[in-house]
Amino acid sequence: MNESTPDVPRTTEGTRLDPWFDAYAARAHRMRASEIRALFAVASRPEVVSLAGGMPFIGGLPLDDIGEMMSRIVRERGQVALQYGSGQGDEQLREQITQVMALEGISAHPDDVVVTTGSQQGLDLVTNIFINPGDVIVAEAPSYVGALGVFRAREADVVHVPMDAEGLIPAELEQTLVSLKAAGRRVKFLYTVPNYHNPAGVTLSLERRPQIVDICARHGVLILEDNPYGLLGFDREPMPALRSLSPEGVIYLGSFSKTFAPGYRVGWAVAPHAVREKLVLASEAAILSPSNMSQLAISSYLDHFDWQGQIKAFREQYRERRDAMISALQEYIPSATWNVPDGGFYVWVKLPEGLDAKSMLPRAVTARVAYVAGTAFFMDGSGADHMRLSYCYPTPERIREGVRRLATVVDAELETVRIFGAAAASSDGSVDFPAPDLA
Amino acid sequence: MNESTPDVPRTTEGTRLDPWFDAYAARAHRMRASEIRALFAVASRPEVVSLAGGMPFIGGLPLDDIGEMMSRIVRERGQVALQYGSGQGDEQLREQITQVMALEGISAHPDDVVVTTGSQQGLDLVTNIFINPGDVIVAEAPSYVGALGVFRAREADVVHVPMDAEGLIPAELEQTLVSLKAAGRRVKFLYTVPNYHNPAGVTLSLERRPQIVDICARHGVLILEDNPYGLLGFDREPMPALRSLSPEGVIYLGSFSKTFAPGYRVGWAVAPHAVREKLVLASEAAILSPSNMSQLAISSYLDHFDWQGQIKAFREQYRERRDAMISALQEYIPSATWNVPDGGFYVWVKLPEGLDAKSMLPRAVTARVAYVAGTAFFMDGSGADHMRLSYCYPTPERIREGVRRLATVVDAELETVRIFGAAAASSDGSVDFPAPDLA
Repeated sequence: MNESTPDVPRTTEGTRLDPWFDAYAARAHRMRASEIRALFAVASRPEVVSLAGGMPFIGGLPLDDIGEMMSRIVRERGQVALQYGSGQGDEQLREQITQVMALEGISAHPDDVVVTTGSQQGLDLVTNIFINPGDVIVAEAPSYVGALGVFRAREADVVHVPMDAEGLIPAELEQTLVSLKAAGRRVKFLYTVPNYHNPAGVTLSLERRPQIVDICARHGVLILEDNPYGLLGFDREPMPALRSLSPEGVIYLGSFSKTFAPGYRVGWAVAPHAVREKLVLASEAAILSPSNMSQLAISSYLDHFDWQGQIKAFREQYRERRDAMISALQEYIPSATWNVPDGGFYVWVKLPEGLDAKSMLPRAVTARVAYVAGTAFFMDGSGADHMRLSYCYPTPERIREGVRRLATVVDAELETVRIFGAAAASSDGSVDFPAPDLA
Repeated sequence: MNESTPDVPRTTEGTRLDPWFDAYAARAHRMRASEIRALFAVASRPEVVSLAGGMPFIGGLPLDDIGEMMSRIVRERGQVALQYGSGQGDEQLREQITQVMALEGISAHPDDVVVTTGSQQGLDLVTNIFINPGDVIVAEAPSYVGALGVFRAREADVVHVPMDAEGLIPAELEQTLVSLKAAGRRVKFLYTVPNYHNPAGVTLSLERRPQIVDICARHGVLILEDNPYGLLGFDREPMPALRSLSPEGVIYLGSFSKTFAPGYRVGWAVAPHAVREKLVLASEAAILSPSNMSQLAISSYLDHFDWQGQIKAFREQYRERRDAMISALQEYIPSATWNVPDGGFYVWVKLPEGLDAKSMLPRAVTARVAYVAGTAFFMDGSGADHMRLSYCYPTPERIREGVRRLATVVDAELETVRIFGAAAASSDGSVDFPAPDLA
């Protein structure tokens, strides 16, 4: 099976069979379905071990109690839960969100908070109000695929800045901003995932946090801090958010998708006051108001459940899965290299010399294991020497089995490279964006 | 109380106090909070009769049973309900949506359906994929304020086409399209609410439906059919949707907000296949995926409740409220004129000569009654001689009382005009967009 196999359907974009092809906006032509989307349909079959998805493990949630909570919300507050709400979001939930953020040193007023349909909507709203086509967004190399999808759809240019084991490198950021200024380019914001980075798994060190904030302040560049994993560290208390260091210089995005459940689609943005007002207007245009039912559910969960205890349980589960993945990598694919994340969902694996994660993917799926190729996390299609492995969803046993299967594919690729050279195993350099919920 | 009263806070847009004012995208500067937003904060006090909002009457829903349904969903299908879903939406719900649409003559495949976060998101997605700044959207005069908000945010030009008691006038549409073509303008789509129009209350006649479809087909103009009220007619069966006449020429938007409950934020779009694929990509960039919890709730409601019987009950309730409003208008404000809607939520009232609905609004709120001035429904700020009255939410008694209060304000305005002339009662012609959920 390879990418030209006829039973993998190709997308229809660009075909003249679309009667409205000539009517699309310029930005719509930049939106492309990934060819690996078809692979993901295969990858989601039960016999495939998916190390691709970012789906949290919600098996440990007390479903009976949550069900009873939902019933009570409708019985007792149905006239609110079933009705339209405010564009900014439920006031009580916004108050509770400020308490959640206090765990990371953020002091915010509920009026600074906008409730969003997942933090993905926060990404879209911020990009919407700041980006003219061609504006520059500076982002880590690599960066979250769903953010790159938004930036691409909004016609931004993304300039990547290198990271190391301590996260974004301040000197590289400084140099990038200086170069862009010298080239007359307008940098609108720095997009960063400081904690348990997706996909790189690293965390911005305590020392670097004020340095990053200071560099951006000196260059007049806003920071967009995306923090879905901050409370999911395995070995330490949460670090202070960038927002806690610079309330006027940072827009912070948070989410209940990883600390509770993504099915409600509730996230939030915290922004300087005038920006917050723009975000509300943009959100009203996009969806009128977030779901009252979902908001009351989150609010009630925070009120009546031991949500911090549940997060502790999640941390233990994810730590066990990380351990399973790391030990399986050591055992089965010692020729690769990787970081050992101390929180979050992801291991960022560098393949042995000559291997290409993108071209290898169809063969991996045939061997019943899936991952996301590194190319998804760079705007320019680089990153083919990396893959992202997720340990959040499968059991430890499945993770071991998945890595074992992956090892057979890697070994076969290495054999191909040995015989025919690296070109036989490399992709064409084009970028595929998988559906973000799978990434 | 008038618009310069100090206790009505003015919005902060444009102030140099915003440190990021210079960083916004061009489109963000077009987003403006309405000054009447502050009035709506007053208007939402319990002592004010609001004839402004489009909030459906959900008091008749069986809350205990719906609560039990929510509990069952989490207990039995919690691993799905609480997890991420697909960007296009739940497959079973999409199948059920095709059955709902069959009531209006639409034959669609579930694969043609995209589930959206309310039909407002459908409006945003369609505008997103078709509109470059400066492109023309043709729309009825007047048009739904929330659609105009999206079109404005996406930098479209809106050209209004007149309606009469039978809806959009075909000859006027034809002439408008010819003129725009002659002027070299690119018309991307016709935006229309064919049934129980918001705010005009009229319905496109059976005879005109194929004519409108034909005119648009000849000019190569897509139709965006927005149909939240189609099943809420008082005296007749639903008319065939424009989509049923031209599956390839129409994008259809539907919603469960008026036929069930808006608190779940579930709507949908049906589009030609290639367009549908773009809509899914745009939706994934915007929100990853719609809420599984909300989708399973709607799906379960359609499966286990007499949803068509509930719609019949809604129709009876709304008919009673329409009757209350029309008889109160006849009794208290005979100097105005209005249509008598045979479905939906709205009466479109033309004020007596010389009165201005926009400048009168603060005085109405002082008299403890609220409405939406006609200016909200035109892109160019015309329409000040009209107001939209909603009968969907207040009880018949409150509707009568609201119209009685409105009459005292109208009478006082007429007296002012008689003494000082019309200029004393007129607004400045600028357009205010109220929060769409209030409109």
